[in-house]
Amino acid sequence: MLSYCVRNVLQRRQCTLNAAACRAAPALQLSRRACSASSAGELDQAGELLRLCVDRHYVSPGQTNTERFQCGASCVYGPLGSELRRNLLEQWWHSVTRSTAQVFGINTLSSSQDAATGGQLRMVESDSLQRILDQPELSREQLVQQVQALIQSAPSPRTNFLQGALEQCVPSLELVNRKLPFGLAESGLCFQPSDGSGCPAEVTQTSLVWFCSPRTSSHWLDHWARQRLKWWRKFALSPSNFSSSDVPVEELEGPASRGVRIVYSFPWGPEPLETLWSRGQTELLQTHKGVRSKLQCRDGRKSVPHVVSVTGNMDRGVMAFLSNSLQQLKREDNKQKLLRRKVLKLHPVLAPVKVALDIGRGATMELRQVCEGLLQEFMEAKISAWPGYLETLPTSMEQLNAKYDEMGVLFTVVIGENTLESGLLQVRSRDTTVRETKHISEIKNFLSRYISAADNI
Amino acid sequence: MLSYCVRNVLQRRQCTLNAAACRAAPALQLSRRACSASSAGELDQAGELLRLCVDRHYVSPGQTNTERFQCGASCVYGPLGSELRRNLLEQWWHSVTRSTAQVFGINTLSSSQDAATGGQLRMVESDSLQRILDQPELSREQLVQQVQALIQSAPSPRTNFLQGALEQCVPSLELVNRKLPFGLAESGLCFQPSDGSGCPAEVTQTSLVWFCSPRTSSHWLDHWARQRLKWWRKFALSPSNFSSSDVPVEELEGPASRGVRIVYSFPWGPEPLETLWSRGQTELLQTHKGVRSKLQCRDGRKSVPHVVSVTGNMDRGVMAFLSNSLQQLKREDNKQKLLRRKVLKLHPVLAPVKVALDIGRGATMELRQVCEGLLQEFMEAKISAWPGYLETLPTSMEQLNAKYDEMGVLFTVVIGENTLESGLLQVRSRDTTVRETKHISEIKNFLSRYISAADNI
Repeated sequence: MLSYCVRNVLQRRQCTLNAAACRAAPALQLSRRACSASSAGELDQAGELLRLCVDRHYVSPGQTNTERFQCGASCVYGPLGSELRRNLLEQWWHSVTRSTAQVFGINTLSSSQDAATGGQLRMVESDSLQRILDQPELSREQLVQQVQALIQSAPSPRTNFLQGALEQCVPSLELVNRKLPFGLAESGLCFQPSDGSGCPAEVTQTSLVWFCSPRTSSHWLDHWARQRLKWWRKFALSPSNFSSSDVPVEELEGPASRGVRIVYSFPWGPEPLETLWSRGQTELLQTHKGVRSKLQCRDGRKSVPHVVSVTGNMDRGVMAFLSNSLQQLKREDNKQKLLRRKVLKLHPVLAPVKVALDIGRGATMELRQVCEGLLQEFMEAKISAWPGYLETLPTSMEQLNAKYDEMGVLFTVVIGENTLESGLLQVRSRDTTVRETKHISEIKNFLSRYISAADNI
Repeated sequence: MLSYCVRNVLQRRQCTLNAAACRAAPALQLSRRACSASSAGELDQAGELLRLCVDRHYVSPGQTNTERFQCGASCVYGPLGSELRRNLLEQWWHSVTRSTAQVFGINTLSSSQDAATGGQLRMVESDSLQRILDQPELSREQLVQQVQALIQSAPSPRTNFLQGALEQCVPSLELVNRKLPFGLAESGLCFQPSDGSGCPAEVTQTSLVWFCSPRTSSHWLDHWARQRLKWWRKFALSPSNFSSSDVPVEELEGPASRGVRIVYSFPWGPEPLETLWSRGQTELLQTHKGVRSKLQCRDGRKSVPHVVSVTGNMDRGVMAFLSNSLQQLKREDNKQKLLRRKVLKLHPVLAPVKVALDIGRGATMELRQVCEGLLQEFMEAKISAWPGYLETLPTSMEQLNAKYDEMGVLFTVVIGENTLESGLLQVRSRDTTVRETKHISEIKNFLSRYISAADNI
């Protein structure tokens, strides 16, 4: 189904949309390559991944939706994808705000009326436009002028968080007593125009804008590039798929003097996940109309801060970790039949479901009650659990395990008759497939310890 | 300064904007009342609150920005407001998804191209519009037609999350084996048109869309209304300021048969924080073009689910908790001078800064090193800490405490010469103003226990 999609894309409207969005949106780096994988192997791998994402409720079904996802734009996520994205954003937030005391989170508005930064996309009120069109006394020329004026004064949705952070530099300087360095962090949706045939592309971006003294900006660019690459690799099954490289001089953007890209090697080729720029002070000065006194810092020379920006695409980040963690294992069963097992080995911290709760043979009502109690315990400990025991369609344990492996569920707990008698239950690990017997009283702590141990490596 | 603002608002453009937004946006319930407080006392209280929010980096400075905030719309938040909003949204998320096993988080797109649900606000690409205006061969009439067609086909930013959840009902039914009830949760920005003179109003909304069997929908409406009121009150200093009441029949919206509002009594009057509607099945059927088979559930009668929606405005929620937690205390000092103390007694779970770290007298370099170590420890334990020791301007301990009280900082830890010798430090509580001596090794656990105890009440 999916390789069909990927191939089809080349002949369809959607690809034009994607291609146009890619051209129009260098900052968001939407990708055409993802929609034009060439070799059969690449198509198979990409198709397999997307099929699994849809089947296991990471990404909502529908061709336009999966294409959006594959091009590194935001899409409609199912419950598992939504939770994975939440986990990823939370990890990003903690890594950035906890790495140093002087990173502050801010929230700016998602659209701006500043004519200077106004973009292609405009938010227009249809009634206001209609009022102009409804005036019969206007000449054709006057009509054109008024429509143009309305559009030019209409607010633009943000394409990134840079401008908002540059504006917030002044109130923040007061907060830090004009001492450098410090950073402003924000995450959320940014928008890019499409080719007009579809919705504008939305991307879940993360942004750290770092203000430092002029002589240290190159050092900080390297510092953040190292930190960010380390962060991506921390959650990877194959860390070598994540890499970083300097942006060639001819690709430098705007006033940037240096740039670093963090890239993931997808089956269809490398795509940027995060981009760091050493931007100097030009944009900051422009934002504050050249009033240096507002921006001067107490570092002896009263210098205006230099800006290092770190911008990530977390929708593509979600796809990178899904792609990175999908393992296809082959093994022979005891009848020498070849079995293929697909496992989504997401990092314990990122996995949207940590534990599934199921019942084996026994008095169903009583076993369910035990499950309810355990589920409550997990939820209170913020361990996300899957209530498999509510499932009323009969499934074999083997089918169940295959399903949970594809969902990336870390552990499966099975409550059986034995549990009612002795308190013992079966715990199966996704990564080792080993089944262990544990006492019901120790399972919550076991899971908490397992997850926090993985977090602290 | 602020009572001036509030009064001024009545004579200025901004008020028209707010008033228009209030009229246009019943779902977001932006409020005109907040901008037209009448009595002097109300103005003082509102002004005092807003001034403190700006001074203490909850809300970014600027008159338009504070007015946005006061009207219950999203604004530019400073670092403390941004963290408070994060904490509130996280608590909401956990309360909704942990309250029952069958609430799933989803992520839908922020704009839709569906003509049926298309709203007032449209996202237009200025180039596409310009191309139409640039065609000299078009007659006036043709020009009007083409501009109208472009606007009508342009995507609309969402005004709420309902439509997205109704669309996701079908894939979710598969996930739950067509068993009711279950819910879909989402939070983020929604948009409302302004009067055209300003940016569209953005609101941070939370949404739970609950699908249940027809005969239980009234029961579930009551259940969620109780749960939600309990949740708001859990974090309140004066819980009685939060109340709920049935929506009068004449104010019922669309197909809703019943509604409940959760309201906060601000100094300037009551404002709705969250609204619950029992909406029946009409909208769900419309969304799926009347195809009942796609929506039928396994409850014996193969019924189409009924919908209960729970929609909150978390920007106003932030303001409600700030307003609720601001205490003004008067006491005499030992010279019988009257001192006024303002304390932001935010709930320990919501407070953006849990602990401030400062140094007393002693070898500055060494004391700072101790602070750095402790700060790292707090950050690893996800206890948000304020590095007061970086402050280089001399302040008295009294001034420092007054500042931290206004920031709502739970505890202040002071590292002094004594700490270097014996490991003992001073801990001051915001709520009791009592100073205790503790050993440096126990401070992290003390804070963690304090916060989680407050969470579990």
